[in-house]
Amino acid sequence: MKIKLPVGFYYRGINSGIKKNNKFDLAIFYSIKECSIAKLFTKNKIKAAPVIISKNNKNTTIRAIVANSGCANAATGKIGISDAIKMCSITAKNLSIKPEDVLVASTGLIGNYLPIKKVINGIKLLCKHLKKDIKNNKNQNKTIIDAVKSIMTTDTKIKIESEKFKLDGKTVTILGCAKGSGMIRPELSATMLCFLFTDCNISNHILQNALKESVRETFNRINIDNVCSTNDTVFLMANGMAGNKIINTYNENYKKFCKILNNICLKIAKKIVMDGEGVTKFIELEICRAKTKKDAEEIAKTISGSCLFKTAIFGSDPNWGRIIASIGESKAYIIPEKINIFLNNLCVCKNSTKTNYSQNEAREIVKKKNIKIKIDLNCGKYALKYYTSDLSYKYVKINSEYST
Amino acid sequence: MKIKLPVGFYYRGINSGIKKNNKFDLAIFYSIKECSIAKLFTKNKIKAAPVIISKNNKNTTIRAIVANSGCANAATGKIGISDAIKMCSITAKNLSIKPEDVLVASTGLIGNYLPIKKVINGIKLLCKHLKKDIKNNKNQNKTIIDAVKSIMTTDTKIKIESEKFKLDGKTVTILGCAKGSGMIRPELSATMLCFLFTDCNISNHILQNALKESVRETFNRINIDNVCSTNDTVFLMANGMAGNKIINTYNENYKKFCKILNNICLKIAKKIVMDGEGVTKFIELEICRAKTKKDAEEIAKTISGSCLFKTAIFGSDPNWGRIIASIGESKAYIIPEKINIFLNNLCVCKNSTKTNYSQNEAREIVKKKNIKIKIDLNCGKYALKYYTSDLSYKYVKINSEYST
Repeated sequence: MKIKLPVGFYYRGINSGIKKNNKFDLAIFYSIKECSIAKLFTKNKIKAAPVIISKNNKNTTIRAIVANSGCANAATGKIGISDAIKMCSITAKNLSIKPEDVLVASTGLIGNYLPIKKVINGIKLLCKHLKKDIKNNKNQNKTIIDAVKSIMTTDTKIKIESEKFKLDGKTVTILGCAKGSGMIRPELSATMLCFLFTDCNISNHILQNALKESVRETFNRINIDNVCSTNDTVFLMANGMAGNKIINTYNENYKKFCKILNNICLKIAKKIVMDGEGVTKFIELEICRAKTKKDAEEIAKTISGSCLFKTAIFGSDPNWGRIIASIGESKAYIIPEKINIFLNNLCVCKNSTKTNYSQNEAREIVKKKNIKIKIDLNCGKYALKYYTSDLSYKYVKINSEYST
Repeated sequence: MKIKLPVGFYYRGINSGIKKNNKFDLAIFYSIKECSIAKLFTKNKIKAAPVIISKNNKNTTIRAIVANSGCANAATGKIGISDAIKMCSITAKNLSIKPEDVLVASTGLIGNYLPIKKVINGIKLLCKHLKKDIKNNKNQNKTIIDAVKSIMTTDTKIKIESEKFKLDGKTVTILGCAKGSGMIRPELSATMLCFLFTDCNISNHILQNALKESVRETFNRINIDNVCSTNDTVFLMANGMAGNKIINTYNENYKKFCKILNNICLKIAKKIVMDGEGVTKFIELEICRAKTKKDAEEIAKTISGSCLFKTAIFGSDPNWGRIIASIGESKAYIIPEKINIFLNNLCVCKNSTKTNYSQNEAREIVKKKNIKIKIDLNCGKYALKYYTSDLSYKYVKINSEYST
């Protein structure tokens, strides 16, 4: 994997003992210079301790993220809050920065306490490594992978995307990494854990808007199992070390930056779906001619949340009746007798009525690993794309064995 | 099965050729006297043709229901509408009643046309049988079972409940039957197909209210796969032949009637959950101390719709973290730090924090076939019970193979 690295960021991951079998479970992401910061969190009203702590941190600049997998530190009360604070303060102390310069994120099982002593020792070790790396100007191509491995839960693949582009003649890089897999549902402020790093020079407020826009059209348009987590977090750190003129208005450079950020978020979002728990098929839902954007989103969300639709796709069954049932079930405005449905380019339903299509042809389409389904609502101008997966035996297997 | 039969109703079911292997697929439910009628239908905006036709029938008295399984007659356009009308008119003609005296319902695969010639022949045969039965005053103990078999899809068990009670010294009987299994989600006007028959003398308007009340607290409080069908229908026919004084106000007799109706609906609703597609566990969710009834319903709905919760229960994993995540995800008002969760009587979470419970004890509880989960929201006075199931390999199997 050829990773493009933004200037001034260092990453480290290790096994601290939260997980068994020496699996990586703790990481620090660090910038040698203070960063503008954008943050988005789950809309779930039950928030994990790290979400509460990172959300309440009103500092406008950030230096580091400390993150763990194997334990969500959610539903852990005062002890959980205290543990999340400790993670920040120990990181700060060992990197000689302030506690409010550090954000924290956790992922894993809900309702378990962190083995905080192990975590503290792990943080100390990570900081030691990081200081050495900075001193030796160590290439971060391998260490970023270790760090990303440390936030993985049931993920089977590492999710990193990066791009370089020019602003004012300077080279700017954005790098994003994420963990996904289960408890993925859109219409949150954010989904899953995703950390993004850039050396772009961009002001705080503008950065937050850029992230919000990107997340709305990428991470909020994926759905694996229609469940919204207590820990979903997206952080975007920008340390300005590329040396471009600061972006502090919505100018052309802002648009350029947003375009690349969007690309990266979309690529990661799709990777999260493809690597979703037990996923065997990747489905692109295209909703077109909806009355409003919200209507299109509602319909995509309802279809992608239907167990019946997802199991049919798993079984390569072109059962579009379950699609039209979901369209009718959603809260969106529709004209019930005007809906057209296409599997790839095959029209299976016109004006809400079965067409004279070939069952064999339909079956061949849904047999494939990548399936495009187009829903033409025929009642407006709004269109969007949305990404989802099937529901397989393996999803049931993974999730019936998760905590045991 | 000892079935209590209301006076004046006749039932017949046969194989008409919609389904293969001689499985029953067509039924008529008939009253020798005109009936008050209460009706409830799916809230899905895509409505099957029989739903449209039965809903549009504004006749205040009804004599018969004609119903089929094996084909939902949904997303079938004008042909579907014409077929549903034919089902009513052919039934009427052969029973010497008016077409508007007949209601129609269908269940099965969405997006297929009815083999209408076979259905018409089937209806003719059914009517011939019925007329003979009436002439011979034939006991309906067996024929009701045939009729109920004819509306079953993936059901594995016949669902009939009946009760006798006294009103004004007269014996009144209510009998209910249903098909369920998949595409079961609450908060509709109704769910699945359920037909209820009584010889009670009760006016139309009062009957509709009684049904609405009962459905709200029974069929609308079950959830199997969180999917809402295009065909859900509940009919309640009352022919008055018990000879009680007509119930046309909300008096004591109305309350008595409602109580029995409620019992029957609740028993059937629970049976639908227990016989849900691939169900291995029956879960009673008790939500208590909610701020409002709607909040309690929202929370029960969200928990019972979570694939993660349902797969955990399937795997006998006491993963209550997924319960609290669902509580936070729902739209209901909660105090995030005040929630208590009990598995049977074992408190696993107090004030939204893990208690010091025994993992083994928790595991023993969720290993059982019947599991009670209590959610104490600690922020109001409203309580309710709700019924749901797990999500198993078999659900995936059934639904990945349904139409093929």
